[in-house]
Order: sequence, then structure tokens, then C-alpha cells
Amino acid sequence: MAVIGKKTWAIAEGYIPSGSTGPEPAMTSHETMCFLNAGERAAHIRVTIFFKDRDPVGPYTFTVPARRTKHVRFNDLKEPAEIPRDTDYSSLIESDEPVVVQHTRLDSRQAENALLSTIAFPAD
Amino acid sequence: MAVIGKKTWAIAEGYIPSGSTGPEPAMTSHETMCFLNAGERAAHIRVTIFFKDRDPVGPYTFTVPARRTKHVRFNDLKEPAEIPRDTDYSSLIESDEPVVVQHTRLDSRQAENALLSTIAFPAD
Amino acid sequence: MAVIGKKTWAIAEGYIPSGSTGPEPAMTSHETMCFLNAGERAAHIRVTIFFKDRDPVGPYTFTVPARRTKHVRFNDLKEPAEIPRDTDYSSLIESDEPVVVQHTRLDSRQAENALLSTIAFPAD
Amino acid sequence: MAVIGKKTWAIAEGYIPSGSTGPEPAMTSHETMCFLNAGERAAHIRVTIFFKDRDPVGPYTFTVPARRTKHVRFNDLKEPAEIPRDTDYSSLIESDEPVVVQHTRLDSRQAENALLSTIAFPAD
Repeated sequence: MAVIGKKTWAIAEGYIPSGSTGPEPAMTSHETMCFLNAGERAAHIRVTIFFKDRDPVGPYTFTVPARRTKHVRFNDLKEPAEIPRDTDYSSLIESDEPVVVQHTRLDSRQAENALLSTIAFPAD
Repeated sequence: MAVIGKKTWAIAEGYIPSGSTGPEPAMTSHETMCFLNAGERAAHIRVTIFFKDRDPVGPYTFTVPARRTKHVRFNDLKEPAEIPRDTDYSSLIESDEPVVVQHTRLDSRQAENALLSTIAFPAD
Repeated sequence: MAVIGKKTWAIAEGYIPSGSTGPEPAMTSHETMCFLNAGERAAHIRVTIFFKDRDPVGPYTFTVPARRTKHVRFNDLKEPAEIPRDTDYSSLIESDEPVVVQHTRLDSRQAENALLSTIAFPAD
Repeated sequence: MAVIGKKTWAIAEGYIPSGSTGPEPAMTSHETMCFLNAGERAAHIRVTIFFKDRDPVGPYTFTVPARRTKHVRFNDLKEPAEIPRDTDYSSLIESDEPVVVQHTRLDSRQAENALLSTIAFPAD
């Protein structure tokens, strides 16, 4: 099977709305980073969160096991600090193994939901 | 005409909602991988599906004929196993000819539909 | 000013819904390819449309003037043939000058609109 | 921490709807370019806006401080000229330091909002 992915990724756009409509938790407004580790070794991930008016916070650390996917909600990140709602942020994602990262948001502040997704930006 | 595409692609984000609203089948919640094979030879595709807590499943195999598009709904994949609903997954797509892959989802769980699309991640 | 862009692009996903809701023409369901020609020479564009079960149709030809944008609705392409509604297609876009291409769709079949956008896939 | 980003980016698609529904200002229709400057030096940004039928306008200039994000609404750009509503445009973004750029739009013209996001197109 092919090795695929990069070790460094960025998501310039980040924003967790504080409100939601619809059944919980599936329709709660959330931001997700989706990982694919198609390789044979576990990937150790370090995420740093950047803000507009204060120093970055991190690293948030977790593992994506070999040959597994992991969908991580920014809403659920607690250590070293919860990510504030209604606040612009960006993310830098560093891994010790090649992974693929995609960014998704469900915005259910109004009854009419909006959903976005885009591949994160990879660095060589 | 230009040769365009890559032989390996990944879609880190995957999720088929179990519910839908609106007329079937066009407005059924679904996930699609869209292929373009602009070349002169048929492309033989192998898709492997990755999960968060068990081994990958696949390959799902099909052919994109020369100079054709093919839009494949993950919902319709049956062999070797149907893809579970309401479950996070990732996809690795391997082809013996260069193709272009784009990922689209229609989420019609609530009356207000959401639609996303992003180019898949290509490997060299 | 920087030269930016590529001469070959692909959009694997294409679909023009036949129905719409909302005021015309802004809210008509449509698919658009958006061009940026940031250079000093006009770009001559050739678009070929691929289908799942018949030969490609094209070229559709038009010009993006130097230092201009052009947003082209697939709905409006007439020569050599109109693009059928409710039909899967893909696009190959070739230019004689570097351009940047982005793909957008407004789907207003149901009252709740959906909007998607993704950068097209560039070839070297 | 990894250096990540490019110095030139393009967003081929641009459009600020003139109407909105929902509470202001969060749900006002808007277009945003989101920057991540993960580096140790401030990035000086120059944005040029391209139109379909007249000369480009710019540069719009601002700074993204070191190790900060900045989310810039096109709606808020005033100098050298406000960006017209309901008008197609494209953007060329030039920086003196590597940055990452993502493009987002909230379209709240109808009660049912639409949200799109895509990574901008990077040049080497």
C-alpha cells in the first residue's frame, strides 16, 4: 500500500461558534481535524493554536495509530487550555510520521446548517 | 490533450449520515468520490477504507474507462463490506493510471441541506 | 507583480441541478469556474467536458484578458453543445498562459441553499 | 517549530453579497481571507483585487504579526477603495514572509446560510 501524507500541516481558518441548533452531539457546531495515518507506525501529533492578539497555545498532543483514522474535534481539546468560542484561530499540526489532514466545520448556529471542508495546507 | 492526475489519493474525512430529508435518491445524504480519467487507457481503482478502532477494509475495486468521469457513492459500495453509517472513516485511493479525485458530501439530515466539496490529497 | 498559476487544471466533480429556488438569476442553481489571469497577456482557454457514458465534448473556448478575472457559468456554455442538467461530468481546462482556477456551485434545489467551493486541481 | 507557508497566493473566486439575514455582525454575508504567520517575523501583506472589466485595484496593505493569525474581511477593506458588492473579483496576495492563506465566505442572503472554505492557491 502506498505511503501517503506529510509531516507538517496548517489550517489558517478556525472558529468554533458558541451556539447550535439540532440534536446533540451530532449537530453541535464544531470544528474537526480529520487524520489518516495509512502507514505502519503510530503517528505522534502536536497541535499549536495561534490567536490574533496573544501568544500561541500548545502543544496539544495525541496519537493516531498505524492504519487508522482519527477525527479530532477542536471543541474537545482541553490540555493545556480549552479553545475559546467565537474566537478566530489558526492551527499548526506536526507529526513524526506522514499523515493526511482535512478540516471540517459544522456551523449550526442558525437552524439552517452550514458545512465546510477543505484539505489542510501541507508543507514538505 | 494534457495528461493530468496522480495515481494515489487520500480523503481523510469520511462520514455517511444515516438520515435524510428531501426527494430520493438525489437528496439522500451521501458521500461521493468523483474521478476524472482524461487519459487514453482505462484506470483500475482500488479503494481502502480506514477506521478509528479496527483494521482497514478493502480493496473496493472498479474501473474508470478512458476519457470518462465516474462519480462513485460510498453509500453504494458493497464488496467486501458495506460502509457503516454514522461512522468516521478515511479513504486511500490507488490507481494504475493518472486520475483526478474530488470529494463531495450532501448532508440532508436536517431539512436544511449542507454540501461540501474538496479536492482529495494527491501523492506523487 | 508575481506570475501565478498553471496552464492545465481539472475539476473532477460537475453537476448542474435542474431546479432552483429563490430570486433569479443570482440564486439559480449553477456551477462556475472562476479564473484569475494576473499576467500581462490574454489567456486563451479551452475546456473539455467528460461524461460517464459517452465521448468528451469540446472544446469550449473563451479568453480571459490580461489582469482580469472571469467567472464562467457552466450553465451558460452553448457551443459546441449545452451541458445537460442533472448529469455527472468532469472538466479539463487548458490555457496558453498561467491562470488560477476555482470551482464553485450554488445548489438551490431546495429552499435551503448549499454552496461549495474548492480550488481546481493543477498540473505542472 | 516548522516554518510553513508561501509568499504568493491567489483566490480566483470572490463575491460579497449585498444582502444578509440573521444577527449582525457575525451572520452578515462576508468574505474572509484567513492568515497564519507561524514564523518569527512580521509578514507585510499586499493584496491586489482583479475585476472582469477594469484595471486591478490595490495594493491593500496590512501586517500579520509574528506567531499570530489574522482573519481579514474583504468587506472591511477601505483603502485605496471599497470592494463593490454583488461583483465578481479575484485576489492576489503577496507577502514578504511565508504565510498560509485560506478563503471563507458566509452567504446569508437567504435565511438558509451557506458557508464555503478552501485553501488559497499557493505559488512557489
